[in-house]
Amino acid sequence: MTTVYVTVPTDHADDIATTLVEERLAACVNRFPITSTYRWEDEVHTDDEVALLVKTTDKAYRELEERVLDLHPHDVPCIERFNESHVLEAFADWREEATT
Amino acid sequence: MTTVYVTVPTDHADDIATTLVEERLAACVNRFPITSTYRWEDEVHTDDEVALLVKTTDKAYRELEERVLDLHPHDVPCIERFNESHVLEAFADWREEATT
Amino acid sequence: MTTVYVTVPTDHADDIATTLVEERLAACVNRFPITSTYRWEDEVHTDDEVALLVKTTDKAYRELEERVLDLHPHDVPCIERFNESHVLEAFADWREEATT
Repeated sequence: MTTVYVTVPTDHADDIATTLVEERLAACVNRFPITSTYRWEDEVHTDDEVALLVKTTDKAYRELEERVLDLHPHDVPCIERFNESHVLEAFADWREEATT
Repeated sequence: MTTVYVTVPTDHADDIATTLVEERLAACVNRFPITSTYRWEDEVHTDDEVALLVKTTDKAYRELEERVLDLHPHDVPCIERFNESHVLEAFADWREEATT
Repeated sequence: MTTVYVTVPTDHADDIATTLVEERLAACVNRFPITSTYRWEDEVHTDDEVALLVKTTDKAYRELEERVLDLHPHDVPCIERFNESHVLEAFADWREEATT
């Protein structure tokens, strides 16, 4: 199974999380308040953001990535895929049922 | 090695984290305040919760999963296993010593 | 690609995150406020800390690990490596450019 890590500006977090679940591209999205330090155009910046852990399935991954690109305000958003080596069976079944 | 991702209702987080460490099923548990949006019985809900990152070992994983199922108030809890590709050796040794 | 998970005392988080990005060992560092319960010298402790998710590359990993060991106040810091199975191509390119 697949968990997708996405960082978003704080004011876009609710909308992106809710849209992904409503459109059945994710069964669940956990939101974390974070502070990010990063290099952009060769200068170091620090901003408050929100990290999303998006619980989806292998089957839904590509469509989810496309949809995040649509919804995200940045040209180069952080979209990273991590695979679980095991998920509690009943929880895995629920993730399958809740996504397309 | 193994890190286990579990989400719990806020009022159960301290108890579950402390029990897992006291019973040597985990060397350490990091707790994150989160907001979750998820689909349940075909409706979309949003709740505040806590995410646990449970630092354990391959050997202790099955017993840990069973114990979380005992302690968790939900029938279908989020229990997901992620494997590190590398852990600082001294920290890995400590994780082995601190768990059964 | 590689994301490195590090936990640090709260008062060291800004300095370590900024140094890793300034020295091009990381493209970005996301900081999470956390509470940790852990076993140390056979007693269970609970402290507030900060978790760092350090976005780097395979090439920079060893040097990054060494630098965290320099900067970190603990003798046995939590330094764990997780590999993404996929990263959005444009974001992966940016991570390569922003690190040595």
